[in-house]
Amino acid sequence: MSPPEGALAQLRRGHEERVLDLLRRHGALSRSALGSLSGLSRTTLHDIISGLLASGAIVAAAPRQATEARGRGRPAASLSLNPAAGQAIGIDFARRRVHVAIANVAHEIIGSASADHPAGTPCQRRVEIAERLIGGLSEGAVRLGPLRAIGVGVVGPVGSPGEQSAAARRLNAVPELLRKSFGVPALLDNNTRLAALAESIWGAAEGGQDVLYVRLSHGVGGGLVLGGSLHRGAYGVAGEVGHVTVDPDGGPCRCGGRGCLETIASVKAVLAAYRRVGGRARDLGALAAALRAGDPAARQVLAYAGERVGLVLAAVCNTVGPSLVVVGGELAELGGTVLTEPIERRLRAEVMPMMRRRLRLRPARLGEVGGALGGIALVLHASPLLARYPATPDGGEPGEPEGLRAP
Amino acid sequence: MSPPEGALAQLRRGHEERVLDLLRRHGALSRSALGSLSGLSRTTLHDIISGLLASGAIVAAAPRQATEARGRGRPAASLSLNPAAGQAIGIDFARRRVHVAIANVAHEIIGSASADHPAGTPCQRRVEIAERLIGGLSEGAVRLGPLRAIGVGVVGPVGSPGEQSAAARRLNAVPELLRKSFGVPALLDNNTRLAALAESIWGAAEGGQDVLYVRLSHGVGGGLVLGGSLHRGAYGVAGEVGHVTVDPDGGPCRCGGRGCLETIASVKAVLAAYRRVGGRARDLGALAAALRAGDPAARQVLAYAGERVGLVLAAVCNTVGPSLVVVGGELAELGGTVLTEPIERRLRAEVMPMMRRRLRLRPARLGEVGGALGGIALVLHASPLLARYPATPDGGEPGEPEGLRAP
Repeated sequence: MSPPEGALAQLRRGHEERVLDLLRRHGALSRSALGSLSGLSRTTLHDIISGLLASGAIVAAAPRQATEARGRGRPAASLSLNPAAGQAIGIDFARRRVHVAIANVAHEIIGSASADHPAGTPCQRRVEIAERLIGGLSEGAVRLGPLRAIGVGVVGPVGSPGEQSAAARRLNAVPELLRKSFGVPALLDNNTRLAALAESIWGAAEGGQDVLYVRLSHGVGGGLVLGGSLHRGAYGVAGEVGHVTVDPDGGPCRCGGRGCLETIASVKAVLAAYRRVGGRARDLGALAAALRAGDPAARQVLAYAGERVGLVLAAVCNTVGPSLVVVGGELAELGGTVLTEPIERRLRAEVMPMMRRRLRLRPARLGEVGGALGGIALVLHASPLLARYPATPDGGEPGEPEGLRAP
Repeated sequence: MSPPEGALAQLRRGHEERVLDLLRRHGALSRSALGSLSGLSRTTLHDIISGLLASGAIVAAAPRQATEARGRGRPAASLSLNPAAGQAIGIDFARRRVHVAIANVAHEIIGSASADHPAGTPCQRRVEIAERLIGGLSEGAVRLGPLRAIGVGVVGPVGSPGEQSAAARRLNAVPELLRKSFGVPALLDNNTRLAALAESIWGAAEGGQDVLYVRLSHGVGGGLVLGGSLHRGAYGVAGEVGHVTVDPDGGPCRCGGRGCLETIASVKAVLAAYRRVGGRARDLGALAAALRAGDPAARQVLAYAGERVGLVLAAVCNTVGPSLVVVGGELAELGGTVLTEPIERRLRAEVMPMMRRRLRLRPARLGEVGGALGGIALVLHASPLLARYPATPDGGEPGEPEGLRAP
């Protein structure tokens, strides 16, 4: 057994890691929030915080721009990881667009950017687009610091390492290409699930512990945040609300099923439904124009889709019990309350009485950049991280930054 | 800050608690399983295990009856909490029956019993029935030891402490009555959710980390075990598969909704459907007889209910991603494969391709005692427990058994 001095340092190190880990996951926190989340005594916490402040691992008072970015509704936070300690990069390889975002370890979003590309663009080219966007954002100043990983969103289900879906296997080249470009590993997840995580940290569900997110776009997907962490499910399938069957006798879905929610509430399905009732919209822009013009047929098809979405969300709420439902995606942005009111009406009608009034429904706030921000969150939530800081005051070993392990 | 000797003892105590906590949650474990679950180094773990064995807090080799009770399929476990260190009691206050079960901290089930009572029997009387059953089982030898709580299953949703449902509030007298009788607090949860937890520990999903359980009985309910822990949801509503809407235009449900799964797949609903097609069964016994006689109408109504159950389970699987689905309850026991085959067929047809072949479906194994066993599991999973053991070898403070805090 190690001598007492080593044990003391190890114990202290454990407390420090706990505090750093909480700040990394939650962003800036007050001392009292740190106290209740860490479970450390007031005296011990004071001691640990003093040491971390002295070493520069954490800083007091979140910088001004961060406070603004957080928006209203949350009291000024007082301690965060040192923003200079490192940055995290998130990349979302969407179907025809690459989104990138950069944040520092204090959860401050430094910037985001995106660029379109034709369908079928090879991985190598898409990674180059990402590199270029990141270069443009950071002007050479990206310092990955102790995080040492990039969080990447991809289309389609992503299982645990070693349990990758066919869709993820098609993207197998991506992590290796990113590793070559940035010299760090890439943590992968489904981009819609990552958007769910991002909404729970920076968006409509900020601070939410149990969040159901649904994205109504060209596809219909979703994600679950349970206990503040992204829920992946045993086979990486969690959150697939778009492939819940709403009509067993319905039309075929690209997943191989029939009558999935996606066959009713995707952009394509809504446009097709609109044309079936005589509408002429070929794309979302035309549908939006019809809505603005007050076309009752346009409202009707959106309301129908909304009802079905509400029904599926209610099924998930009754079984999973989130406190907050976030609705995002292009169709939701376009439809506004024409879509969300029937969703909410049906949702409240179908959930158990206990949650009927308490459940909250909100429009997503992060838009298209959510997937890339979620990639950052994936890195920030990956454990363990030890922020770079010098020797502990009590003579323990210098705190070497530890590599980041995939969650 | 405490002197080095205290820090050393504290560190060691932390390691000991981690090992004891794992044995309490999982029952008997091999040394290698303890190593991977605890994350402790081989040397440290060896040292901690030696100390705990010497103090009598844990014992090597699970007693014979426990090995038998575990059934086949799991290798002989080698370390467990000392069975003499304490027992846990579970009570299930079902609608017209009280179930009780006793297990020791080594997860060995000592016994179970149940007694019927008329509907509407007051709480006081039902608690007395539980007391009598427990007395009969234990012959005065119940030693609650360091657990100091009773796990209790009740009908209806149970929220977090302070978020109780109307149904739970009607049972408000129960915890107080139990505290008076046994001198310990009662941890409450929904009895179907508790059955889910029990199946994941002692039953059809033994050792399962992500389990969806559905009970088809006079009501239709369910439970989710995620990451090895019972999932409660933000408002205590999690697992309510019986109140997922399968037909928005369907008949009224007692929850206030319409066309819930319970209006199709409960005992009452299936009997009513059977009568609508000319069947004459007034109760489950008659339906069972009709099934045995090969009555096609009886098979048909069960198959229809099974299809709808499969559809709802598929929706939950696509969004939550369990690896195992367990189907229990009186209707499932009666229906056998006539019910479970259509459930499984529909389930596999509707889940995402990634989980189609991998998802397992099993009949429940614990029967009616599952709720009471789940009460025991609730106590065993409540944290923290510190098994009674003497002063640590390195001169730390004596390990006072700590009280049990509600999870």
